[in-house]
Parts: sequence; structure tokens; C-alpha cells
Amino acid sequence: MSRAAGRRSECPLACTLDLIGDKWTLLVIRDLMCGKHSFKAFTQSPERIATNILTNRLERLVDHGIVDRYVNEDHAGRYTYELTEKGRSLFPILESIAEWGLENIQGTVQRMRPKT
Amino acid sequence: MSRAAGRRSECPLACTLDLIGDKWTLLVIRDLMCGKHSFKAFTQSPERIATNILTNRLERLVDHGIVDRYVNEDHAGRYTYELTEKGRSLFPILESIAEWGLENIQGTVQRMRPKT
Repeated sequence: MSRAAGRRSECPLACTLDLIGDKWTLLVIRDLMCGKHSFKAFTQSPERIATNILTNRLERLVDHGIVDRYVNEDHAGRYTYELTEKGRSLFPILESIAEWGLENIQGTVQRMRPKT
Repeated sequence: MSRAAGRRSECPLACTLDLIGDKWTLLVIRDLMCGKHSFKAFTQSPERIATNILTNRLERLVDHGIVDRYVNEDHAGRYTYELTEKGRSLFPILESIAEWGLENIQGTVQRMRPKT
């Protein structure tokens, strides 16, 4: 198989980090898992993601089949965002990172819980 | 407890991403887990990390107690790097990310195995 464009190696860790290896993407996934579905709701999370970063990350997640975007019929021009099955399969990654933080970083508190 | 400097929130996911949320840090941790211990060895991994990025990431990992750095007595001025216990506790994070990649990104191949 030829090397995929833009890929740094065949390593599954490196390739996944090409997609989610930044400070913001997994926070948007966290918000989606915890029941947030609108652009505005994402911007209101405590980390205060900048709107240009949020726009970029949502586009990338939609492009990679991790998030579905629907036109919100009640509010023309607004969208509703939902995790796809592929997106929901990121849950073990979020869980392992959050567990490490709770164990190793003083003052961290788990306030949000995924909606089941 | 007062908010720690530079922290975006109390969320354990966000705080851990403040530390490892980039495209390179976990690749250095991967290399250490797979038996690489020198600056030169890290630069020879297939992703070809730039030396200025590698220097920055190693300093941050040492500062946070994730990596220990020893003077290499055989080669003056060179260092040997090793994961601390805290660093080794990142293994479940690497494992969950690599598993997701193998499952979801075509053409990824697991070549490196952690040394036990």
C-alpha cells in the first residue's frame, strides 16, 4: 500500500495523532459525548475555545467521518453536531487520558460525564 | 484550591492535553517505551522529528517528571533518557490511541512493541 498523503509514518499512534493530536480536538469530542451539540455550546465550555479553532476542528472531524453535521430546522443557518459511530469509538482514548490526569495532575476534577 | 497557572480548566482531559496534546510528545514516549534512550535515536524514528521540537518536548517531559535525563558517562555531553514511573503510567493512553488507529485508519501497521 502506498504511503497516504500527509502521513508521517504507518504507525497507528502517529496517524491517530495526525487527526486528534492537539489541545482542542478531544475537548470538542468530550463536549459531544457529554450532550453538547451546537457551535455556541462548545464555545461556552470552561476552556473557551476560540471560534476560528472550533470551526477548523469541526470541519476536520466532519471530513474524517467522526462528526455528523445537520442543518438545524428551527434555526436557519445553524447546525447540530453529533458523533458518528466512529466518533463514539474514541471514548476509550478520552477515558484513558482523563484517568491519567485525575491520577497524576493535582487539582483536576471530573465534572462532565458521558451521556449513555 | 486556586487555579493552577496556565491551566485552561480543572478538567483532567484538558489538563493532560496541556501536557501531551500535540503531534510529537507521545511519539517520544512511544520511542522510550520501545527501548530508545538517546536524542539521536529519537531523531531516527520514521516520523523524523525536528531537533528543535525534540529538545522542547524532552525538556517539558523532564520538567514534569515524566522522563529522567542522565549524563552518559561514555560520551561526554550526551544524555540518556528514561521514562519515570509516572511516564510509564502513560502506557494505557498510547495503547488506546494506537488501537483506535489500527481499527480506523487504513494502512496503519504496528511495528514497534513496548519492551517489558
